[in-house]
Parts: sequence; structure tokens; C-alpha cells
Amino acid sequence: MNKIPARHILAICGTALGAFYLGSYAERRQGNNVNENTLKLHLPGLPTFSTVSAATLIPANEVNVSATPSRISQIMKYGFPGLDHVRSHSDYVLSYDRRNRVPHWVFEHLTAQTVAKNDAVDRAKSEFRQDESIHPFFRAQNTDYRRSGYDRGHMAAAGNHRLHQKHCDETFLLSNMAPQVGQGFNRDAWNTLETHVRKLTNVYANVYVCTGPLYLPHKEDDGKMYVKYEVIGTNTVAVPTHFYKVIVGESATDQKLHMEAYVMPNKVISNDTPLSVFQVPPETVERAAGLLFFDQLNKKQLASINGKKV
Amino acid sequence: MNKIPARHILAICGTALGAFYLGSYAERRQGNNVNENTLKLHLPGLPTFSTVSAATLIPANEVNVSATPSRISQIMKYGFPGLDHVRSHSDYVLSYDRRNRVPHWVFEHLTAQTVAKNDAVDRAKSEFRQDESIHPFFRAQNTDYRRSGYDRGHMAAAGNHRLHQKHCDETFLLSNMAPQVGQGFNRDAWNTLETHVRKLTNVYANVYVCTGPLYLPHKEDDGKMYVKYEVIGTNTVAVPTHFYKVIVGESATDQKLHMEAYVMPNKVISNDTPLSVFQVPPETVERAAGLLFFDQLNKKQLASINGKKV
Repeated sequence: MNKIPARHILAICGTALGAFYLGSYAERRQGNNVNENTLKLHLPGLPTFSTVSAATLIPANEVNVSATPSRISQIMKYGFPGLDHVRSHSDYVLSYDRRNRVPHWVFEHLTAQTVAKNDAVDRAKSEFRQDESIHPFFRAQNTDYRRSGYDRGHMAAAGNHRLHQKHCDETFLLSNMAPQVGQGFNRDAWNTLETHVRKLTNVYANVYVCTGPLYLPHKEDDGKMYVKYEVIGTNTVAVPTHFYKVIVGESATDQKLHMEAYVMPNKVISNDTPLSVFQVPPETVERAAGLLFFDQLNKKQLASINGKKV
Repeated sequence: MNKIPARHILAICGTALGAFYLGSYAERRQGNNVNENTLKLHLPGLPTFSTVSAATLIPANEVNVSATPSRISQIMKYGFPGLDHVRSHSDYVLSYDRRNRVPHWVFEHLTAQTVAKNDAVDRAKSEFRQDESIHPFFRAQNTDYRRSGYDRGHMAAAGNHRLHQKHCDETFLLSNMAPQVGQGFNRDAWNTLETHVRKLTNVYANVYVCTGPLYLPHKEDDGKMYVKYEVIGTNTVAVPTHFYKVIVGESATDQKLHMEAYVMPNKVISNDTPLSVFQVPPETVERAAGLLFFDQLNKKQLASINGKKV
């Protein structure tokens, strides 16, 4: 393969992502705000993507280690859930919450190939490291997690990115982490959910998954509702009360889409609890997270939500 | 004056704001992320603004009731603190926090003229109303505040927008509100701070002010740090623990800039507490809010912070 200078790749990706991003934003706008009207304008010189056919443009084995425009449009096929501090990595896309020093959301696109066992990729070689693209004021550090009692919990799971070592390495950026209870959650129930998502690639040609933290309110003795969460380290990294995954599986045969949504408390969960216990209507996650998931999806293609026909 | 169709104005504003927004984003980027490199590219067909001279382009009495590109570049002269769900109104710019149903930040540009008493504008004629540009899932309603014990507290103060009734009316959108303790805060100490900001227009030709909520952590008996805040109504509108204002005054004579930063707890504050008690280093607000304020400001022009020479 010809080597393309990194700067050149960045420029290409940048332009394309910019166009996709603007196009996406215009499509999903609500109301008639000035800014959002902006983005409906045609921007000369910027290519636009078809969101419908993008996923089939480039076979996975030609994607390689850099974020290409088509890869990004593949991952983000059904729209951006938000627009705050978006980072596009070679195999996942992330929006960073600078106030909480954890992601808002992380978007992945999985196929049987990207999650297949690959002896050339070893997660033991990947290191947890700070994300230097985040301003130092808002950047989580390894020291924030040390002796906190919490794991550095991947939002984009390492095991979902097995095509290249670089793909796996990039999931170890601290911008992709949130503090998770280790034993009984990150290493157990949450891992079970991650494995379930990977197994969906046996059923669907393409699997899209959006993952992120929640800060859910609870009622206290005074009858009022409160949000309460711990923050750790000198950078006050938020410990989310819950985590969500919203998933869309795309059938190769009939083009039908199947959606699943899960919310799990960031607590020790008994290993015999079935995953179905954590299924919730996708709208519940949207309201709580302040995000809209898969809102560019053609509702006519949607065949099921949480295993039930729609 | 010739009447320009609203759609046309929207398109003009849109294009210009888009360009300013992109330019702003490119200037302030940290690191070498793909997305942010994007935005450094020249986008053909889009005008760019000089951030230095924009404030003098259009006299305030010609600005009228619609958001013009120059007005937006005036308000936002020193850069956007964030990019999430930005709304540009005729005389202020807002970023909305969809998770908390309150603003992230609100930006205003004040002059002696915009804050002067004007008998043609009556805030009693303005009504608190929902912002229909916000998706219904994330939209605060008047019913959320009812019987909550909290005021609908303006972030962009009504008294800062006295040139036209429409300017004043737009500050009554619920997207510009956050729940504030009424007696002893919103109607007292916070009002004193708002009045102080308006009085700065007697000293400075241009005053820029960014206002927003904070959710500050506190230590509990277990030695751990927690963020805790109430949420009100069926839309779970967050009650911030604190509010901030970061202000830049621009001298007409020597072009020097003077910065002030305040953080006030959302609590009853004794009326004899001097404002200086609430002054904090601007960096403290930035770290807590997850935002960067006035980061396009030329540091050489900055003469003082909180009254102290820099």
C-alpha cells in the first residue's frame, strides 16, 4: 500500500467529516433556529455523503489504520447524538464531556471481521494514556483513578477493535474511559453486555453501538429528586451512576434494523442476572442522556426494539 | 428601512455565523485532532470575520431586531466557550445543556446604549415561554418550575437588552433560565451582580459577559468528593449549586481589556456581602464549567483581572 502522509490523511478526513457533520446536523435540527438553518446551506468545495450507502463503500480489510471519511460515515451512519468536542479515532468516534472528564457518548460500528480473534493484535500491548487532544484543564489522568477504587472502564470496548493494534491502542485513551466498579461490574455484568454486542455480529452484517454514562436522579427522604455522583482525583473525574448502550443491528438479507437499549447501574451486579433485566425503551436513555440516538434512521426499516416487533 | 424577508436574514446570519463558528473553533483547538484540523481548512464561499474589528462594524441603533452576522460576531468576539446546541438570538448567544435542561453558557455584549432606560421596552410585557427550538425531550416547561420553590432565573438578564421589546422578550425563553433561589439570591445578590455588570458600561465602551451554572463538588463525611444537585419537575431541570459570570470590559481610550470573574452559591446571601467576596480566578470557573472563556483574547491587551494588574 502506498503511504499517505499523516497530515494529508488528516486533511481529507477533516474535510469529509466536516461535511458529514454539517449535513448530519442540518438533517436533525429541531425548530428553526438561526444556527441550524445555517447548516442546511450548501457549502461549496465540501463533499457530501449518502448516509444510506456509506457502509458498503469500503470493505473493512481496506480501511486500514487511519480514519477515512468513509469509515467515519460508516460509524456515524445514523447521525451524531451530539456535537460537543467530537474526536474521530481510526475505529470509533467520541464526544467528550469536558465538565465531567468522561465521554458524553462513544460510537462504534462492528462487523464479524472487526471483532474476530486476531493474533496480531494484543491488548496487553496497549497502555492507558492521557488524551493530549483534550485541554489540560479537562483531561483525566491515570493518577485520578489511582487508589480511587474504580476501574478505568472502556466505553469503546478494546475487544471490539481487533483489526489493527492501533485500533485497539486508541481505545486505551483516558478520554474513552469512565470510572467503573471493577469486580461485579466492569469485569462481570458490563463485560457480559459487551460480549453480547460482539455476538450480534453473528446475526447482523453491521452492528452500530452507542455507549455512554448517565447521572440518574433519585428521590430522597425530603421528597425531592437529586442527582448525586462521586468525583475522583485532582481532575474531579465523574463516577457515573449508570451506563447505557443503544444498539442497532442491520440485517444483510432484508435490510431490516433491530434496536436494543440497555441501562446498567454502576454497581456490583449478580452474575446470574439476565441481560434482559437491563433493557429499557431507547427513549428513556435519550431523555436521561440529553442525546438523540440513531435519529437519521428510516423508521420504516425498524423491525424490532428489544426483541419486540414494532 | 427596507424590509428583508425573515428567511433571507436567517440565511445570511446562518452563513456568517457558520463561518465565524468554524473559524473560532479552529483558532481555539487544542492538540491535533482530526475534526479540529478540519475546521482550519478554508471553506470556499463562506465569509470570515475579523474578530478584532467586528465590534465597531455596525452601530447599535442600526442593528435592529434580527440577529445579523456582525451582531453575532460582536457578541462572540472572543470566541465560543463551547459548541453544544448553540442558539443565536437577536441580542445574545446561548449554548444549551440538554441533559440538565438549562444553559451551558450565555454570552452578551453590552454598551451604555443597550442597557439604557428605554420607555419603549417593558419587561412586564415579556412572558416566560418554552423554547420550541429545543427538542421536546430536553425542553424545560413553566410547569417544571411551578411550586418548586425556585425562581426562573435569567442567565442573559432582561435588563441588559433594552433596545427593542423583542430583545427583552427573547431573554424570557425558558432555555435562558435556570432554577435560582428567589429571595436572597435572584432578587438580591445575583441582581446586584447583574447591576454591577451594567454599570461597567459607564467605564468601558464594550462589556462582554458570559454567564452560566456550575455543579461544584463538596467533601462528605466518608472523605470522598461528590457532586449533588436537585432536579425539578417532570423534565428534571437541574438546580445548579452555583452560578458564574466572566466579564471583559474593553476601554475605548487605550484598547486595554479588564477581566472580572465571579462565582456565587445558589443560596440566600446576606445583602451586606460585598461583591468582591465572590471574585475568583477565571481559570477556576473554566475548570469547573468545562469551558474556556475569552480564549481568543490577545493576552497583551489584558490589563487587569479582578482589579489587579496582570
